[in-house]
Amino acid sequence: MPGVFITIEGVEGSGKSTQLLRLSERLRHLGVPLVVSKEPGGTALGRELRRLLLEPHPSGEAWCPEAELLLFYADRAQHLHALIRPSLEAGKVVLVDRFEDSTRAYQGASGVPDSALDRLSELVLRRLRPHLTVLLDMDPETSLQRVEVRNLAYGAEFAETRFDQAALDFHRRVRARFLAVAQAEPNRVAVVPARDPVDQVEAAIWVRVSALLRSAGFAVD
Amino acid sequence: MPGVFITIEGVEGSGKSTQLLRLSERLRHLGVPLVVSKEPGGTALGRELRRLLLEPHPSGEAWCPEAELLLFYADRAQHLHALIRPSLEAGKVVLVDRFEDSTRAYQGASGVPDSALDRLSELVLRRLRPHLTVLLDMDPETSLQRVEVRNLAYGAEFAETRFDQAALDFHRRVRARFLAVAQAEPNRVAVVPARDPVDQVEAAIWVRVSALLRSAGFAVD
Repeated sequence: MPGVFITIEGVEGSGKSTQLLRLSERLRHLGVPLVVSKEPGGTALGRELRRLLLEPHPSGEAWCPEAELLLFYADRAQHLHALIRPSLEAGKVVLVDRFEDSTRAYQGASGVPDSALDRLSELVLRRLRPHLTVLLDMDPETSLQRVEVRNLAYGAEFAETRFDQAALDFHRRVRARFLAVAQAEPNRVAVVPARDPVDQVEAAIWVRVSALLRSAGFAVD
Repeated sequence: MPGVFITIEGVEGSGKSTQLLRLSERLRHLGVPLVVSKEPGGTALGRELRRLLLEPHPSGEAWCPEAELLLFYADRAQHLHALIRPSLEAGKVVLVDRFEDSTRAYQGASGVPDSALDRLSELVLRRLRPHLTVLLDMDPETSLQRVEVRNLAYGAEFAETRFDQAALDFHRRVRARFLAVAQAEPNRVAVVPARDPVDQVEAAIWVRVSALLRSAGFAVD
């Protein structure tokens, strides 16, 4: 596939949204053909799953871990089918806020065994992997504090999701799992310290993204 | 688990609903502790997935085969977690309208490879299998004609689902796949000719169900 697939990962409060916005604006300004999306909920049907995954259901029923895992992968299969693969085939740069590493980090930290994750990954992704994953790394104390401030400032619009309510030690396990992926796949995953000033984080991301796009033949200078 | 798990399978128009109703009424009359359910949609959350699977989405977007398959198994995982396993553990008879054999028949006939089905089955069912599956077998010419008559008679209430719209040769493949499961697992799957008069079909089902319940220690005579 001639396009370039870039994902951005990290815990809540690590600055993903800000950096995604800055990066996408810069790429648009440079005239790079771009598709920006997110998981869960990168398609119309996927947004129905996002709602079912992240909002409490009126019945009070909660998903069991297996069902939750399968829903994340159903969303991903649809996203790949309807948006990601066609955009890559059309030669575009595809920028996605959260992808499979988030499932590995969050569902893995919730106790889903790696064998289940591997099995679903093989079924849904087949051989497709992001060309580059930017991991915004931050200690959970700082990220959770940032989320709290954001919730106070913005109210319902940025209301905490189910995952924000999880305890600090859960977020420590999530971070450890993100870092383990980065260690296992150093060529794909770029770890960017996310506590640095926002301009500095942006610059660090741009070094990696611009090098990749240049090597793929895009004019980014 | 001390309960008894019975599923009823077959193509649309094979008389599943009628027979399920008769069997459940008979069991209730005999005082057997009973839970009656269906797939997809055996739980509150599952009904949300049923709607997403069977009703066309306002966006016009349709699920890709992998996403559809994962949603059926997400529904099943939740159903097992929230209803089937707890009911069996409580010693009840659990009677379910469609279960995994339907996924194998319909999604398999749509081109999903057996390896994907096996993988998801292992993940979601682990070792659990129905003690008895009643397969109402019928040629697709007759079953599709029945569905058509029902739609004319009942209008929107029984409006055709996506699957009813599939062609006759699709339904032939579905039937062949149901029969292949029955041939592979003759001890679990009882094939009941569904074109016979409804009382005769009911009697044939009762022979198998009553024998199973008797052997499990339920008073059914």
